Amino acid sequence: MPRWESDAQGRLERAALDLFESQGFERTSVAQIARAAGLTERSFYRYFPDKREVLFAGDELEAHLVAGVEAADPGLTPFEALLTALGTADEIFRPRDFLLRRVAVVAANPALAERDLIKLADIADALTGALERRGVEPGEARFTIDVAIAVSRRATSRWLADPDAALADLIVQAADELRRAVAPTR
Amino acid sequence: MPRWESDAQGRLERAALDLFESQGFERTSVAQIARAAGLTERSFYRYFPDKREVLFAGDELEAHLVAGVEAADPGLTPFEALLTALGTADEIFRPRDFLLRRVAVVAANPALAERDLIKLADIADALTGALERRGVEPGEARFTIDVAIAVSRRATSRWLADPDAALADLIVQAADELRRAVAPTR
Repeated sequence: MPRWESDAQGRLERAALDLFESQGFERTSVAQIARAAGLTERSFYRYFPDKREVLFAGDELEAHLVAGVEAADPGLTPFEALLTALGTADEIFRPRDFLLRRVAVVAANPALAERDLIKLADIADALTGALERRGVEPGEARFTIDVAIAVSRRATSRWLADPDAALADLIVQAADELRRAVAPTR
Repeated sequence: MPRWESDAQGRLERAALDLFESQGFERTSVAQIARAAGLTERSFYRYFPDKREVLFAGDELEAHLVAGVEAADPGLTPFEALLTALGTADEIFRPRDFLLRRVAVVAANPALAERDLIKLADIADALTGALERRGVEPGEARFTIDVAIAVSRRATSRWLADPDAALADLIVQAADELRRAVAPTR
């Protein structure tokens, strides 16, 4: 059982998802989430700054990806270093059934969909720093990250739908599709 | 002189930018923007649903890009059709000095930066529909759009910095860089 299954943060995340599904995001309070998780409101705020944040797992993914880029073989291109890091994201992903429910709840609530976009932009900013430390010029870094995130989105949506697939393999597949999609026709 | 220079919408946009720069986004009211533009609050709401929207020019860009994709040569790949449309965005861009000031104001105000992300996501959604009408499967459409938008962001940031460059040329240049950046090293 992954660590989060049994800890307070995990209980809060699952309680929040249950409540957002059953009664909607807007009508759910932090107090209700904490109570459903058997915790106090004060405990909630130890893990999350606000209600919108509870489905976004703090900065775990960002920290994991930055560490992955920093640890990647220096001989890799910036794009390859990013894909290598993004291919390990499933190491810290929540269980697939939780993520599938989460995707639906986020899509149904504009406040959560906005937070999702902001989180992704924050991750892109953090990765820009990680690539710059590998000697990549900032504009090129940002460009390469935008493209790598597109590859990751394509791979992750397939990973969510296919219990037998490995995320790293799906990223390789999506990168191959990218190369074909951008090939000149002439 | 482009149409927006002399019309009410343009006056509101310029007044808002002046006020956001001089006193900050949070401290500026819709009433102040309208007054500075020589218009009523009621007129403001004829053009924009709220204060956050005033720097985002309604749905002009989205409509322009969707029309561009729909009009693109059916023989073009989805990626080429998108780049062709994105390369004409400067036809409806505001003047460069306005856009440069706008970039700085948006970056300095989290509420505007969020709206910027949401606008971009809305444009991506709209373009997905346009590609689907060209027969592209939704997942592939979204992926290709994410990549094309990355190319467009790279090109547009250069266009803003270089008064002599044509956006369409910078998009071709960024697409070439993309092909090099994603090439396998083996």
